[in-house]
Amino acid sequence: MIRLNPHYSKLQAGYLFVEIARRVADHNRNHPKRKLIKLGIGDVTHPLPPSVIEAFHSGVEDMASAESFRGYGPEQGYEFLREAIAEHDFAARGCPVSAADIFVSDGAKCDTGNFQELFAADITVAVPDPVYPVYVDTNVMAGRSGSYKKGRYEGLVYLEGREENGFVPLPEGLPPQGADLVYLCFPNNPTGTTATKEQLALWVDWALKTQALILFDAAYEAFITSPQLPRSIYEIPGAEKCAVEFRSFSKTAGFTGTRCAFTVVPSAIEVGGVKLRDMWNRRHSTKFNGVSYPVQKAAAAVYSPRGQKETGALVKGYLDNAQIILQAIKRIGYQAWGGENSPYVWVKTGEDSWATFDRLLKEADVVVTPGSGFGTMGEGFIRISAFNHREAVEEATERIVTALG
Amino acid sequence: MIRLNPHYSKLQAGYLFVEIARRVADHNRNHPKRKLIKLGIGDVTHPLPPSVIEAFHSGVEDMASAESFRGYGPEQGYEFLREAIAEHDFAARGCPVSAADIFVSDGAKCDTGNFQELFAADITVAVPDPVYPVYVDTNVMAGRSGSYKKGRYEGLVYLEGREENGFVPLPEGLPPQGADLVYLCFPNNPTGTTATKEQLALWVDWALKTQALILFDAAYEAFITSPQLPRSIYEIPGAEKCAVEFRSFSKTAGFTGTRCAFTVVPSAIEVGGVKLRDMWNRRHSTKFNGVSYPVQKAAAAVYSPRGQKETGALVKGYLDNAQIILQAIKRIGYQAWGGENSPYVWVKTGEDSWATFDRLLKEADVVVTPGSGFGTMGEGFIRISAFNHREAVEEATERIVTALG
Repeated sequence: MIRLNPHYSKLQAGYLFVEIARRVADHNRNHPKRKLIKLGIGDVTHPLPPSVIEAFHSGVEDMASAESFRGYGPEQGYEFLREAIAEHDFAARGCPVSAADIFVSDGAKCDTGNFQELFAADITVAVPDPVYPVYVDTNVMAGRSGSYKKGRYEGLVYLEGREENGFVPLPEGLPPQGADLVYLCFPNNPTGTTATKEQLALWVDWALKTQALILFDAAYEAFITSPQLPRSIYEIPGAEKCAVEFRSFSKTAGFTGTRCAFTVVPSAIEVGGVKLRDMWNRRHSTKFNGVSYPVQKAAAAVYSPRGQKETGALVKGYLDNAQIILQAIKRIGYQAWGGENSPYVWVKTGEDSWATFDRLLKEADVVVTPGSGFGTMGEGFIRISAFNHREAVEEATERIVTALG
Repeated sequence: MIRLNPHYSKLQAGYLFVEIARRVADHNRNHPKRKLIKLGIGDVTHPLPPSVIEAFHSGVEDMASAESFRGYGPEQGYEFLREAIAEHDFAARGCPVSAADIFVSDGAKCDTGNFQELFAADITVAVPDPVYPVYVDTNVMAGRSGSYKKGRYEGLVYLEGREENGFVPLPEGLPPQGADLVYLCFPNNPTGTTATKEQLALWVDWALKTQALILFDAAYEAFITSPQLPRSIYEIPGAEKCAVEFRSFSKTAGFTGTRCAFTVVPSAIEVGGVKLRDMWNRRHSTKFNGVSYPVQKAAAAVYSPRGQKETGALVKGYLDNAQIILQAIKRIGYQAWGGENSPYVWVKTGEDSWATFDRLLKEADVVVTPGSGFGTMGEGFIRISAFNHREAVEEATERIVTALG
């Protein structure tokens, strides 16, 4: 008799964004004529840049004739893309990452969700709170937690993000038993905060000392404009021995619907005498068959001089949106984080997050994300996303100011 | 201290096709001037059909302007593709499968590899022998086996494919303890054999009676031309209550490098009071972010009248290749299976599989797949793939005949 994975039943009802979609659909049904503006889910709205579109078309054209047709590609990704990534994203910033350490995939959500498979079922996992729900849910599915009680899963270690630590938890926040695997995300989703080199160095030192591993989600690194802030954890010496980094073209180049990302597993990481890169390679080649060739060609165009200029403009547009939101929110007297070096603005409303969500939906016809959806520490906050067209952001900001002001 | 998943260390050294690639690379280094022909890995060689290319380009073009741009799509796949699949692949053959039961993904390898996550760690898994290695490896990684001994993993149940059962194992081949989860694949990879409706009905009856689940890999269904053979397990009444089916555009439409597939989880399957479809939906939306929009648009074109005609011609070309190989092999006195309703020919050589592999590589400059790579019952056999251009197949067949004849 077939039996289910018992850990799935511990999961809370809905994935956060599914619940939001449900409430939005209800609202649309009740008010079909109102014009809703979405600053909720972090989904890009601007089209793919011209250089990327050109390369994408040319990749499709390659598939049209026998001479240039590509069947199964390398599971790890084509050399042309991995080399471009290694050169532009890492060598150019002095990071010790080579093309052989890079695994191209169809999404950072998949990679951050799948990576935990490489580890024992009984390791202790630490996750920030608030946090992107995928880190938590995938570890619950794998049986690394107990039941859900009062907003938290037993057995997981929560790294609290608070006003006092500027939403940047540090190793000193760990409980005495420590942790074996830590998820970090900077620029942070949902709080929009960034970590300095000194702060990341504390984590790297801690991981090296305790032989722990850091899973570093850098999906939003392209939004960092302050030159002193690290864009990769590999800017911290020693990180190549204790940290895996996740990156994505989703927010950098508008690939949320096109699907391309990558994970860096440096060859210097060894666990119990085994190279972690070899483990991920085995997992990746057994359960994955590579990213669509035309998509990889499109992604590689991001690194061309034109691609860099065009994607830079895309990112700047969203950053300008974030400033519009941040300044308006501050003007009406709310405290807010992020909005600089990040597409997210994290606003302290002090009231129940879903209540603010519902109020903005009903009174302002604007969708935001309730902070409590990211964890108990997110209660009393909302996340406003800068991913939309300028006019939409301006109008939504005005409406939010009216509703909250 | 981080610790590894201990089950990975049970895995045998290489994924079969990685080892083949290694030997081929050695051979090429030693004989750089010889013209190698690959009938090994089941990778398509013909370009994408014109109707698919057109739709693919148009999908890319949609991404170029703000009005038609698509960000995150539904994790389950776009309605336009799921409806087309439900109508053409299932309703047209009288199968009770609706669009809501269909989950679009980037590959059947991913889906057949990931699906086992939904089940308890201590269920008993039955796999055919010989078999596509992914079913076995992913269950080993998940801890559902003991060590590897004499070509088999302890704790797995092996369904032996033999000459006597025509390489179609039936439930009568199960040991007394039975099994909770059974992987079946027809047309079979590697043996090229097909199962009749009566044979599949025996499996469905067994699963319903014992409350077991069947994972049915139908990646090669497009190669079935005999009208009496089932192309979907849902042609068997009751299968919608006990079977999940995996399909792919890889071999049907040349998508091995384009990446699109789908899995059918009928809403009628309940395990312990839970709809299995809801479990897969939770897994799929937590760890996956949907298939690239232009790729889904390309896949939908397969179901247009032109797409059907063009992909039909593609498949027929490979089937004709298979006949050329099969007839030549039989002429020199070898026994062979498959080659009809299948792109694979399974040849009994009687000698060590890797020895035949090496002989054909060195003497004929032809790459095939050693049967033992698919399991102990594959020893003494080789798999010859029909995926190549006609002239290449003709030349390779001549060379094989000379070397083996």
